[in-house]
Amino acid sequence: MRKGRLFVISASSGTGKTTLAHELLKEDKNLVASVSCTTRPPRPKEQNGKDYYFVSKEEFTNIKKKKGFLEWANVFGRYYGTPKKQVEKHTRRGRDVLLLIDVQGAKKVKKTKPDAVFIFLVPPSKEELKRRLRKRGTESKQEINKRFHVATRELKELNDLKLCDYRIVNRYIPTAREVLKSIIRAERLQVST
Amino acid sequence: MRKGRLFVISASSGTGKTTLAHELLKEDKNLVASVSCTTRPPRPKEQNGKDYYFVSKEEFTNIKKKKGFLEWANVFGRYYGTPKKQVEKHTRRGRDVLLLIDVQGAKKVKKTKPDAVFIFLVPPSKEELKRRLRKRGTESKQEINKRFHVATRELKELNDLKLCDYRIVNRYIPTAREVLKSIIRAERLQVST
Repeated sequence: MRKGRLFVISASSGTGKTTLAHELLKEDKNLVASVSCTTRPPRPKEQNGKDYYFVSKEEFTNIKKKKGFLEWANVFGRYYGTPKKQVEKHTRRGRDVLLLIDVQGAKKVKKTKPDAVFIFLVPPSKEELKRRLRKRGTESKQEINKRFHVATRELKELNDLKLCDYRIVNRYIPTAREVLKSIIRAERLQVST
Repeated sequence: MRKGRLFVISASSGTGKTTLAHELLKEDKNLVASVSCTTRPPRPKEQNGKDYYFVSKEEFTNIKKKKGFLEWANVFGRYYGTPKKQVEKHTRRGRDVLLLIDVQGAKKVKKTKPDAVFIFLVPPSKEELKRRLRKRGTESKQEINKRFHVATRELKELNDLKLCDYRIVNRYIPTAREVLKSIIRAERLQVST
């Protein structure tokens, strides 16, 4: 049986990455989302094993010690990690795994799982990025500016060319989505080398 | 009728770009190659209007004066140019045009035809590039080194991210080819914005 692949997608804000991921997962039954471990308490409606694996600090440290994470990070005292075991279980069964992660995380995965497929989605320009952030209309001007600064910093890191296999300028979202799907299909066809 | 698009593909040596272009053109009947004008004399078996449009220095200067080139260059006293007229004729008829060109040329086309789709193909690493150049086995060591240096310089320019819409690391040629085809298909589906 064909072994599945890990697809690592990194995108800056305003590229519609969450919507994109939802669509890919909905349309492609062979693609499953990677579920992270976290030490933060579950929010209402969040399900263990679906949104996150909610674990204690001790459990997290244990997995970490056993090198059980493809990457992990400490965000203001709360731990988040991508469990290796899940990814391996799925890929062994021939399913592909989708991991939506920031560039910092992608860099770490590149070290622990160098045969993953790394895809970066970037906005056409800083102006367009600002326009898209504004268009949401849900945030204050201050919030938009903050997001814009974070996105600009992310964008700089998304230009780390040594890391990515595919870099897509997200000029028109439906086109980017089609290309993303095609990349997954094309990489699936690939004979192992 | 849908208007065709111009696809500008730039790739460094050792990415198999010529083979790739031949395949794309053979398989996709809606895709035509852009034919350049040149002032150099035809070589045996070269056909006017197929391999090149062979023109005199005067004719070339005339087209240039009328801003009839998407880009042009002087290579050791011989002129080469991409005629705007041909591209427009094809795209008006709903056909897509494939232009295989170096990064310098792509940069010029970005100015004269900003709505073209720019795709860069790069080798996975400098080491892999060297390996591929060696693998051809047709050139002397000196020739390989020369090619490698040219390719490294090209590669630096291929990292000009402001220019390209799609950047593909050509890790496995059949996969890169599939992705390229998909990009052309996806961009075709795109509703004009």
